[in-house]
Formats: sequence, structure tokens, C-alpha cells
Amino acid sequence: MIYVNGRYMEEKDAVLSPFDHGFLYGIGVFETFRLYEGCPFLLDWHIERLERALKDLQIEYTVSKHEILEMLDKLLKLNDIKDGNARVRLNISAGISDKGFVAQTYDKPTVLCFVNQLKPESLPLQKEGKVLSIRRNTPEGSFRLKSHHYLNNMYAKREIGNDPRVEGIFLTEDGAVAEGIISNVFWRKGRCIYTPSLDTGILDGVTRRFIIENAKDIGLELKTGRYELEALLTADEAWMTNSVLEIIPFTKIEEVNYGSQSGEATSALQLLYKKEIKNMIHEKGGRAWRSTQ
Amino acid sequence: MIYVNGRYMEEKDAVLSPFDHGFLYGIGVFETFRLYEGCPFLLDWHIERLERALKDLQIEYTVSKHEILEMLDKLLKLNDIKDGNARVRLNISAGISDKGFVAQTYDKPTVLCFVNQLKPESLPLQKEGKVLSIRRNTPEGSFRLKSHHYLNNMYAKREIGNDPRVEGIFLTEDGAVAEGIISNVFWRKGRCIYTPSLDTGILDGVTRRFIIENAKDIGLELKTGRYELEALLTADEAWMTNSVLEIIPFTKIEEVNYGSQSGEATSALQLLYKKEIKNMIHEKGGRAWRSTQ
Repeated sequence: MIYVNGRYMEEKDAVLSPFDHGFLYGIGVFETFRLYEGCPFLLDWHIERLERALKDLQIEYTVSKHEILEMLDKLLKLNDIKDGNARVRLNISAGISDKGFVAQTYDKPTVLCFVNQLKPESLPLQKEGKVLSIRRNTPEGSFRLKSHHYLNNMYAKREIGNDPRVEGIFLTEDGAVAEGIISNVFWRKGRCIYTPSLDTGILDGVTRRFIIENAKDIGLELKTGRYELEALLTADEAWMTNSVLEIIPFTKIEEVNYGSQSGEATSALQLLYKKEIKNMIHEKGGRAWRSTQ
Repeated sequence: MIYVNGRYMEEKDAVLSPFDHGFLYGIGVFETFRLYEGCPFLLDWHIERLERALKDLQIEYTVSKHEILEMLDKLLKLNDIKDGNARVRLNISAGISDKGFVAQTYDKPTVLCFVNQLKPESLPLQKEGKVLSIRRNTPEGSFRLKSHHYLNNMYAKREIGNDPRVEGIFLTEDGAVAEGIISNVFWRKGRCIYTPSLDTGILDGVTRRFIIENAKDIGLELKTGRYELEALLTADEAWMTNSVLEIIPFTKIEEVNYGSQSGEATSALQLLYKKEIKNMIHEKGGRAWRSTQ
């Protein structure tokens, strides 16, 4: 069952208009995040990023945290996801416009939400990195949106194939490390963590933000910038982040081995991340849906 | 009335699934072209470009010219476009996939076709060019597709506004002339025509191809390449092309005036273009739909 513009329905019954500019022109954005026992982690930051994107696209929609939480609770129940562990895509697109391709504000957006059961034990605990030959294309506007514009990622996915143990790593046109196909990329050298800066055209990942804002708590410095591939390949350890896979080590990138286990920084950050998730679950008592179990 | 996957229906009844990857990931391409008295001009080249794009996106769909012509005839009748003058969008997207974001071949594409009455007399005969501050972002793959990825164009449209007499001109990241928001750009200096080469990341326009393949017939040389803005701004004349507006002069770009009329090359190419259209109409006897008038 999914949510479409205020109603809940079977996937097969869900329809939208081909005149939705989210379809015709890709004017749509989404957030992907994870529910832990029914609780959405870092939801405020996801909402913040979504609001910034909607403003940038001139899509008029007030994101209400309360409504989202209610929507998620209902979707968990309707989809019978008893343990409350799920992957969510909240998708907001421009909606129908009869004005054709002109500069405009979109005031009747299409709001969709899908929730899929997530088996944490099925998720990869580490990845091998492949440096992509296809380069990260430049963002469409002043910053990268998590938008319907996924062709660059699709070509990259095709280059590395569908092995879930492998992640492709984009370089920018001029060879700087950018991001993964579905992740942000980090590494440690000595006592400092490095990750590409947003001006490389990468997505402002929410888990990336968690690490940037918490690195000092594990006694490490953190720098963002434009780094050559060499820096990544000569690091002491490297890892990738996204909201569903969380923080997972690269065991290997190209011919460089980083060791089969999480390195010092990766482990410390994983612990910190898990602790925050526990706090969240504890605080929220596993959401209202538990009361109906 | 529009065409959707083999059926004809009212716009308001036309629906597609939110799980169409043309929506979720922008994996969809389209052709825009013009009907003259029911005849689609340069249809073979549009089909050629569409087939190349579908192959690139691994969308399995055999484009049948015969079926397209039948579809167009029917849409003209159903929409009561008596004079057969229309603007067409033929749109093919990946279709529904339950495999999520993985490398895949799409074998159940969504095929849509919209036809809108076109009043030739309502079309602008000339434009003013504005050099955009937003730069043309790099293509998602090895060449620019006419795809659902239109955000870069949308931001550009917002920069210049909706005045139909104005066209925005993109430069590449490193300042070379690229293309218009909805057009390709040409200029003449002395006895030579210039237009940006495809490696600037621009769309391989069909009208652009017409000019490249016919310039010699009007006694002018033609060169493609990477050109600085200076070259365009010091030209003897400049013009823009797309399948709907055909070939129209820039009277002015920024502070440079090129004269209020079409220049020598623009006029000669317009004549050639109109002649080819007449030949097409004459050859095809204005399509079968005329016989039912």
C-alpha cells in the first residue's frame, strides 16, 4: 500500500497524470530514509533538505513533521511491517501544469510515499569500491538535488552492474573524488577524516552531515575539500554512507586493500550512529504503532 | 485527446504509474516536431534520434514510422485540428519496473503522444538573445538526450522569464557557447557559418542537422567547434533553430544588434527549409486525413 496525495491505496491502483511536470521534465525530489522500530532517524534533517529543495524548485508544499509521522505509522500498519524496520521514499513532484514549459510556481504538487520492509540482516556490511570511468555530471542548478534526475547514476550502475557488494565511485570531470552512485564517501589519514566538499557537485547527504557534525566526538579532525583520487587510495581506511546502509567500510577500492574489518574511525562512527538510533527509539517509545501490537 | 500505450483518451483520463522509471528516475526521452498540413517534417531524423536514445537507455521499443503516422492522423482528427498544423510530443519512458534502482533493460515502456494545434502566425519571427549566467550542465551520459532531465533548462527559463520574444543562451562551464534553452545556436562571419560542436554537451538538434547538411547549398562553409562568446557577439548575423520555431534570427544578443531582419544566411536557409516543407506536403498529398475533410 502506498500514500498518494492524501489517500492510501494498493500500488497497482496508484496513478498520476502524464502531465505531471515531475514526469515530463523531472521536476520532483525525494528523500530516502530508514525507520527503526517505526522511528524515522534524522527526520528533521531530511525534512530540512526536502524543504530547501522544494523552495529551489518553486514547489509550494508545507512539509509537516506531524503529518509525515502519521503517514509512516499508517503505512507500516497497512503494509503489515510488524517490526517497524523499513525503507521509505517520500517523493514530492511538481504536479500537473497546463502552462507547458514556462517559469512557474507549482501549487498542486504530487505527494507520494512508499514504505518497504527492511531486513537489516540482509544489508551488506561492507563494500568494494570501483572508480567509475563515467564522470559525475554537474548539478542542474546551484546545488545537487536528490531529484528525479538519475540518468547519470543509472549509467554508472550499468558500468559496475548489480552486485550489492560493490559501489561505484564518481570522480568529477577534472578528476576530483565526488561521491558514490548511492552514497557519500569518506576516508581517514592519520588523525584526520576527509570527505569531498559540496562544491564538487555532490549530494548533501544526511548521514554525511551526521559524520561532519560528530567527528570531533570521536577525537578526529574532519576536513572537506577537493581531493585527488590518490588521497583516497592512500588512506588508512575508507567508508561510504547513506541513510539506508548507514556507515559501511570499503574493504577495497580498485587494487587498494583497507583491511577486512571496519577501521578505527568507521567503527567509532558506527557505534555513535547506533547509539543515537537507540536513544531515538527509547525517547519515542517505538512510535504509536507499537501500542496496537 | 492523447495517445497512451495503444489507446486514445481524454487528457484528464490519461494516467501512468508512479512506479514508471520515467517518473521516479527521469528515464524517458521525447521528440518534439511539427506537422504541416498533417505532414511531420524530418520525421525520419526524429525517429533516428529517438531510436539512438532508446538504445542508450536500454528501453526496448521498435519505433514504427507507419504506426507513428497512423497515430498522428488519428490524433489530428480526434483533436479536430482541421488544418493539420500542430506541435507533437512523442514521449517514451522506461515504464514500470519492480526491480528498483538497478541496471536493467526496460521491455514495457510507456508510449505517449500529445498533439497541440499550432497557429503558425502566433509564433515569434525573431528573438532577442540573453546570455545566461547559469551554465549548461554536463550531459548525464556520453551524449545529450532529449530526456525528462529538464531542471537545468527550467532554472534557465526562470532566469530569463517567460517573454516569448527572448531566448536564453547557455555557455558551458568553461565559457564556450553551447545552446539555447530550447534551441541550437548558429552565426555567420564572412562566408562561414559557425555552430557549437556536440562535444560542448549540447543536444543534436534535428533542425541543426538540416542546416549542417544543407549549408553548402547556399554557398557557405560551415564549421562546428568550441567557440568563445566573443565569436558570437562579433558575428555578422546569428540565429536559433528548433523543430517548432524552425529558423529564426536573433535581432540582438545582449548589447549587440544584428539588424531587425533576417541576415543573408538566415534568409537563404529559411527559404530552403520552407521549400523542403512544401516538397514534403506535395509529395505526401497532405496525408490521408485530408481525404476525410
